[in-house]
Amino acid sequence: MKKILVLGAGLVARPLVNYLLDQAAMTVTVADQVFEKARALVVNHPSGTALELDINNQTLLKETVSRADIVISLLPWVFHPKIAELCLEYGKHLVTASYVKDEMRAMDAAAKEKGLIFLNEIGVDPGVDHMSAMQVINRIKDAGGTIVGFHSYCGGLPAQENNNNPLGYKFSWSPEGAMLAATNDGRYMKDGQVIEVPGNQLFEHYWLVDIPGAGAFEAYVNRDAIPYREIYGIESTANMCRGTLRNIGYCETWDFLKKLGMLNRNMKFDFSEVTPRQVIADIINSTGENLKKEVAAYLKIPEFALTIKKLDWLGLFDDKKLDIGTCSVFDMFAHTLQNKLIYLEGEKDLLIQHHEFTAEYPDHKKEKVTATLINMGIPGGDTSMSRTVGLPVAIATKLIAEGKIDLTGVHIPVVPEIYEPVLAELKTLNIAFTERKTELTDSANTV
Amino acid sequence: MKKILVLGAGLVARPLVNYLLDQAAMTVTVADQVFEKARALVVNHPSGTALELDINNQTLLKETVSRADIVISLLPWVFHPKIAELCLEYGKHLVTASYVKDEMRAMDAAAKEKGLIFLNEIGVDPGVDHMSAMQVINRIKDAGGTIVGFHSYCGGLPAQENNNNPLGYKFSWSPEGAMLAATNDGRYMKDGQVIEVPGNQLFEHYWLVDIPGAGAFEAYVNRDAIPYREIYGIESTANMCRGTLRNIGYCETWDFLKKLGMLNRNMKFDFSEVTPRQVIADIINSTGENLKKEVAAYLKIPEFALTIKKLDWLGLFDDKKLDIGTCSVFDMFAHTLQNKLIYLEGEKDLLIQHHEFTAEYPDHKKEKVTATLINMGIPGGDTSMSRTVGLPVAIATKLIAEGKIDLTGVHIPVVPEIYEPVLAELKTLNIAFTERKTELTDSANTV
Repeated sequence: MKKILVLGAGLVARPLVNYLLDQAAMTVTVADQVFEKARALVVNHPSGTALELDINNQTLLKETVSRADIVISLLPWVFHPKIAELCLEYGKHLVTASYVKDEMRAMDAAAKEKGLIFLNEIGVDPGVDHMSAMQVINRIKDAGGTIVGFHSYCGGLPAQENNNNPLGYKFSWSPEGAMLAATNDGRYMKDGQVIEVPGNQLFEHYWLVDIPGAGAFEAYVNRDAIPYREIYGIESTANMCRGTLRNIGYCETWDFLKKLGMLNRNMKFDFSEVTPRQVIADIINSTGENLKKEVAAYLKIPEFALTIKKLDWLGLFDDKKLDIGTCSVFDMFAHTLQNKLIYLEGEKDLLIQHHEFTAEYPDHKKEKVTATLINMGIPGGDTSMSRTVGLPVAIATKLIAEGKIDLTGVHIPVVPEIYEPVLAELKTLNIAFTERKTELTDSANTV
Repeated sequence: MKKILVLGAGLVARPLVNYLLDQAAMTVTVADQVFEKARALVVNHPSGTALELDINNQTLLKETVSRADIVISLLPWVFHPKIAELCLEYGKHLVTASYVKDEMRAMDAAAKEKGLIFLNEIGVDPGVDHMSAMQVINRIKDAGGTIVGFHSYCGGLPAQENNNNPLGYKFSWSPEGAMLAATNDGRYMKDGQVIEVPGNQLFEHYWLVDIPGAGAFEAYVNRDAIPYREIYGIESTANMCRGTLRNIGYCETWDFLKKLGMLNRNMKFDFSEVTPRQVIADIINSTGENLKKEVAAYLKIPEFALTIKKLDWLGLFDDKKLDIGTCSVFDMFAHTLQNKLIYLEGEKDLLIQHHEFTAEYPDHKKEKVTATLINMGIPGGDTSMSRTVGLPVAIATKLIAEGKIDLTGVHIPVVPEIYEPVLAELKTLNIAFTERKTELTDSANTV
């Protein structure tokens, strides 16, 4: 009987816990600082235990880790170094869906020495993206090909029928993270040149992508893609880009929202005294008499522009006070987004992952290969986001428990020993990629 | 055995002809100027006959009409007065999906006298819109209610998964009709005031609509809604609007396309000599060196605006000659749209019809009632457009043949004798409305 400890009972935990509880040779302890959240996940399952655990309670945390065989941390990444150290101390494997940072990377030798695997980045993005990309890359390499172009896209969006808002986006949790990411710098490679996209121009630097079977979308640069040339072993590629997918019209509007100061964390107001309308008027130095017209002029767009209608729809021109006290414009905007762009019970999300490779072969044949995952949430059940993040974590944990993954050290799932069995099992859970190949003629573009 | 004559074997004919061929007590003759098109519809069905018929061949047309019991005209409406006159002469019922114009209306008394029905506007829009609206309106009236607000929306769009273009639209046939309609004047009533929308501002005067179960859309004014207060017997309403549904971003872009002169039919070029790029440069009086930037400046939008990307995607900045000879910018643009925004084999369309009523009752209770049809094309089979246009025509024809509709004169389907059985039969064919009711409090808006 392998004992699995799941730290954190948040939004992506349910499909993960259910998957592990379904395994015969396992017990699962779910620990959360809110006992009810943990209990709701294990319900009365005979192999499941719920535990109230404050992560800062070092004694209880140690005791809990020491009793497990494998620890899964769904906590924010800041806690991972601490958890990893305990795993080293007590000799436990660790699985997370988070990016590997320096502190984690530094434990590689120690983990190896103790015969442990610390497997990270095995959610959806990062995670499924790595696995599906590496599967195609290695297949192309095995066939004698060289990767000369690679674009990788990912987006979590509302399913079209639940996309009942003009911004084309919904939040599964608080919007602050996405709002902060809206000023991330980006970097990618195009025709051998490194292109830098400063955060303040992030949404001016977008392009259109056709996702076969899903429709047309916008993509903007997802942080720094350059390191992935090395991580994926495709130093040959002259084109390397990672993009975030959004519905058409997203980038232009978010650029205008930024220009209008909606992400300003320094400018504060007492929202029990002033309304969003008054704040907007204040920001653009207007009397507010003809606010829409003046905002349009401020943004240098026509009054009938879609962005003005979206601002209106969000309630930013409303003359109603908000019950949020004194806070920044950023906080007020986060509050607005959270109220207007939220998934309701029974609504479905849509997770898209799409890779485009250009491969060259020794006979000068060139081909474009695409691999596309289009996954929808289960109405009334788990979201696609929670399934595509949680299930790879769960599957990898099972494979480690069964000894089918027996690597040691700090890993991400870019090696066949990990990605092959995980992708095969995901397929049985209806999380599968569709691949398409086209031979490219000389005039066709490299991605 | 009733003999049905179908004039025209165009895009909406297939489901109609198939429905009629499935009826036991009917023979169906399909006549088209292209024999193959007619033959493809009847195939080898024992009750079906294909006929080559040039509509200007008066002798053959007369002979063909004289042999039928009911004539269905799917021809352009300009032919309908001529067909209707032959129907009067030979004593035949007539069914069309076209709007009733004065020439048709003028035959009302003559048709009545001969015991004939000339039933028009029984496609989808007009057609299904009338029927579904009248069913709700009469139900509200029967319950003692008064209609004080009515918005009606219709849109034929690509299904999301086949919406693989940033313009969010595809054409089932040539784009000229839609391009001409882009300059239609519009008229509607808001809070008792008539609002006129001049054609050149059509796409500046749009708003956002949430269609339950389909998503968020834009709507712009669909011609003159005022006459429908009388046609629908709701002179009580202070709000009356008919809108066309399009995907988000459509109106802004089409407004810019108009401002850029893409609908100009006077400006002509020899496209074997000049490219779209040169034409655009010529229109905005630019050297074309930095065309995107200059077009953006001309339209007073940022260079990163979505509209610029859409123009680029359409190929309007391409420096390639087109094989269309000398023609207007309008023709060049139609050619471009037809090449880029076309349904491919296996792609699905989506037909949405959505009504929003506000009803007031004697006890001052106010309610909002919506009726929504969301219909998808059958992959590899009939489009939603052809089914929702063709099937009501076919069903009405069958009901006339069976004597179950026995009205005489010129009609549109706003009376229960027509809409009740037709809507009931459409439901069995999966073309059905979902109704929703909400009681309105005083602060809630009237539609």
